[in-house]
This record gives sequence, C-alpha cells and structure tokens, in this order.
Amino acid sequence: MNKRATAVALLGIAIGAGATWAQMKPEDAIKYRQSAMFLVGQNFGPLAAMAQGKIPYDKDAAIKHAEIVAFVSKLPLRGFQPGTDMGGDTKAKSEIWENMDDFKAKLEKMQQETAKLPEVAGDFNALKAQVGETGKACKACHDKYKNK
Amino acid sequence: MNKRATAVALLGIAIGAGATWAQMKPEDAIKYRQSAMFLVGQNFGPLAAMAQGKIPYDKDAAIKHAEIVAFVSKLPLRGFQPGTDMGGDTKAKSEIWENMDDFKAKLEKMQQETAKLPEVAGDFNALKAQVGETGKACKACHDKYKNK
Repeated sequence: MNKRATAVALLGIAIGAGATWAQMKPEDAIKYRQSAMFLVGQNFGPLAAMAQGKIPYDKDAAIKHAEIVAFVSKLPLRGFQPGTDMGGDTKAKSEIWENMDDFKAKLEKMQQETAKLPEVAGDFNALKAQVGETGKACKACHDKYKNK
Repeated sequence: MNKRATAVALLGIAIGAGATWAQMKPEDAIKYRQSAMFLVGQNFGPLAAMAQGKIPYDKDAAIKHAEIVAFVSKLPLRGFQPGTDMGGDTKAKSEIWENMDDFKAKLEKMQQETAKLPEVAGDFNALKAQVGETGKACKACHDKYKNK
C-alpha cells in the first residue's frame, strides 16, 4: 500500500468509527446523506466508465476520483438518523430503521470496498476488478433499502 | 503536525492540485458544488458552535468534523465549470466566471485555512482561533461571489 493509500485508509477508519454526531434537523439529515451519495456517484461514475471502456483510462484522474469516493463514502451514515424515513424527498425505505444493524453492515461492506479503490486506481486491471466489487456492494444495499 | 493531520494535508494538496476533471452536465455541476458546500457547512457549523460556546466542546467530534471540512472543502471547485452560472437553482454570481483567478485564489485561501483545522481541533483555544480565520475566508468569498 502506498503512502497516499495508507493516508486514505487511516482517515477512513477514523471517520467511520463510532462517532457521536450532533443531531441534524430531519430535512438537513436527508440532504446530508443525499449530498454525500451524490458526490460519491459523481466520482464513482468516471471510474465505472473507465472500467467499462466508455471513457479513456486516466491514471491521475482515477486516483483522485478513487480518493474522493473512499473518503466521502464514510459520510452518509450520519444522515440516516432516527426519524428521517419520511417528511422529505427521500428514496430511503423505512426498512433501514427496522434493520439498522444489517443496513450498517451493508454500508460498512461498501466502505471496505471503496477504501480499496485508491490502492488499485493506478493499475487499470486492478481498478476494473475493484470497481466491480464496489458496484456489487452498492447494489446489495440499494436493492434492499432504496426505493426506485 | 500529527500523523492524521499530515494525512489530511497530504490528501488535500493532492486533490486540490490542478486535476483534469471530466465535464459534468451543468445541472450536475451545480448540484456537485452545492452538495460539497452543504457537507462543509454541516461540519463547520458544530465547530463554530463549539468555538462560540453554544454547544460543549467535544474533542473527538471536533477532530472528526475538522477532518471532513478539510477534505470536502477541496471538492466544490470542480463544480464551478464554465457555463454553470445560470440554468439551475444557483446563488453563484456570474462574476465568478469573469474573475476566475480571483475566485480560485479565494477558494484556495479558504482551503488553506480549513487544512489547519484538523491540526488544532484537539485544543479548544487553538480551534477557536482557527474557526475565526476560516470563517473570514468563507465570508470573503461569499460576500463577493454569492447571492443572498
């Protein structure tokens, strides 16, 4: 693992680990998780497009996108605070709050996969494989907990 | 500078430095910068509240919020791509694109200040001072380039 990948992993673990956050207003909590997910999507998108050959592989861009995905994917959990399954424009299913342990486990699996992206982004074939693993982790959670 | 502060600084410099980003759809670019700014605000807010004595100082929470602010404040610039001064629900003034060098300089000043937050977040008085410096940098840019 190179120095920057280590830095990402270090920060990721620190930020993901059992923080006690101040409660947000419900509408802000919804916007918080949606903002984080949007940033993740806009950075994972180019990685997926590179992996699928839809845009050229650009090593420097891939590493930067990967670092952003790895970091920002630690943020949405804070927004899934109790009482935010309705009252806003949210696609989150109420099953999230009924199965919070399972939901957190799926989020953590996703974070474990995104944390590997910066490590492999400098190598096209390794990136391609890890984009696939990350996509599976995204899908597993969306399929169960996100409305279309 | 401790290990984690070094990690933040390292990542910040890497991500802030002249990346070539894929163009986004204008509405996505607007949403991208707004999402990043919202996350920054929701993490800087508790730091400011602690500094002002409105909520109790919590060292662990302060460090986590500071790390998020330092990282995510590197992201909005990508969203200020050409042609995104209108056509969406944006408070960005068109002066941004007429004075892009000055705008970037103000953003970079802000990033320099946010990068210091994780270094000082473990010490209340140092945090309080740096929250003040950071707030000034935010305000300098908002006053000139953000509609009310």
